[in-house]
Amino acid sequence: MKIDRDAPIGVFDSGVGGLTVAREIMRNLPSEKIVYFGDTARVPYGSKSRDTVIRYSRQIIHFLKEQQVKAIVIACNTASAFALDAVQHEQDIPVLGVIGAGAKVAAEETVNKRVGVIGTVGTVGSGIHEAYLKKLDPEITVIGKACPLFVPLVEEGWLHDPVTVEVANRYLQELKDKDVDTLILGCTHYPLIRSTIREVMGEKVRLVNPAYETALELKNLLQKTNMLSTGQQEEEFPYRFYVSDLADEFKEFANSILPYDVEMTKKIDIEKY
Amino acid sequence: MKIDRDAPIGVFDSGVGGLTVAREIMRNLPSEKIVYFGDTARVPYGSKSRDTVIRYSRQIIHFLKEQQVKAIVIACNTASAFALDAVQHEQDIPVLGVIGAGAKVAAEETVNKRVGVIGTVGTVGSGIHEAYLKKLDPEITVIGKACPLFVPLVEEGWLHDPVTVEVANRYLQELKDKDVDTLILGCTHYPLIRSTIREVMGEKVRLVNPAYETALELKNLLQKTNMLSTGQQEEEFPYRFYVSDLADEFKEFANSILPYDVEMTKKIDIEKY
Repeated sequence: MKIDRDAPIGVFDSGVGGLTVAREIMRNLPSEKIVYFGDTARVPYGSKSRDTVIRYSRQIIHFLKEQQVKAIVIACNTASAFALDAVQHEQDIPVLGVIGAGAKVAAEETVNKRVGVIGTVGTVGSGIHEAYLKKLDPEITVIGKACPLFVPLVEEGWLHDPVTVEVANRYLQELKDKDVDTLILGCTHYPLIRSTIREVMGEKVRLVNPAYETALELKNLLQKTNMLSTGQQEEEFPYRFYVSDLADEFKEFANSILPYDVEMTKKIDIEKY
Repeated sequence: MKIDRDAPIGVFDSGVGGLTVAREIMRNLPSEKIVYFGDTARVPYGSKSRDTVIRYSRQIIHFLKEQQVKAIVIACNTASAFALDAVQHEQDIPVLGVIGAGAKVAAEETVNKRVGVIGTVGTVGSGIHEAYLKKLDPEITVIGKACPLFVPLVEEGWLHDPVTVEVANRYLQELKDKDVDTLILGCTHYPLIRSTIREVMGEKVRLVNPAYETALELKNLLQKTNMLSTGQQEEEFPYRFYVSDLADEFKEFANSILPYDVEMTKKIDIEKY
């Protein structure tokens, strides 16, 4: 099959969080078109089993391939942890997850070989970052810490707030005590409270944002395979957004974090895929 | 169809929260058997559309009826708001929701006719409590306030915690300013932070716990229709728990709030119903 280099990039997440990844792709690959799918009917994935998350991911990939995408970015940490290996080999287009790129940079940047990972209960419990990091450098010690209140705090919009600072202080103290010099923001929502995390962790700790690193990895991959968009096929809606439920609330959150207003959001029945 | 008075009561919720309702049924109707279903694969319902919640509720009722229940309690506020009317008429056994009983008591107890309702974004946004209360007494003014951080705070176990007190202060100030004398805890998780809510609201405000009121309504209904259990059919597992995903985490939460250890939790594929 000949794949069109001007085809869009498919990005999916369990909900709105993956928009931080879409945002980095928009910033770093401004000529690329994007089809985003947020599985708002079945969010969150973090509390679901591996089998369920793999099944959901296959349905979404099926939908994205119908949209003729040239590559797929799994912008959800849980889906990257549970489904990437399973689905990557089934596809004839590249499929990237958000965990690999972040782990690679963390392994390169850590000096004292003590890397912290924060994320949802599901992501941290999966040990997936540790598995990636240990493969890159067996000497690295990984300290994981689940921060379940961060996502609802971000969704409440309390980004710069004493409550969020207090919660961050409590969650992150253990990582400071254990002297990590590098911290992976292992949940797509967390870049939105990066400044609070920075304040609590101090200036010396390197914060790794996998959304940004994944966008760079995608850029490298498209360059190497000669698949960067020519930028010549203009479209009225270069960014298209699909959700499985409640398109309006999605739009509101999207408009609050993206640099422009989302024009087109469409609800689809993902169970049919 | 002859219904067995020693049959169990079906209770369902989008997840673990409805266990506070099951707990009140256990306390107030100790001879009754219970089949509980927690839709942990598709939690939360609060962000889902009416049609989706009705479809989910029908599937669960189908499952519970296969377990030969004699009555069904919808222990989820969102499902009570969206699905109760639709499913009640389809069934030959009684179906109760958690909203009616709480609204009834609030309407009886309020003196200044100013009733507050706290719950998820979905429940408060639905205006369902207001509709019930206005039908009971058109003079009542209803002040709704969504408190999205309460559920994750409860699930984090921060029940008596300065962070929870600060969040409660922030959420509840508006209700205090508007001088409510009665407050409905319109989310199944909230009875678990009742003492924090009490502390913030003060001693004079009447807190209505719909879980408790629903158990009493069920008791009345079973008495009136001569359907109270005879208590003579002993069973090894009078309380059975089913979930749609991750049975272990459910069990952990259940054990933390129920007065005994949950022995039997089974995962079923609810999409098949």
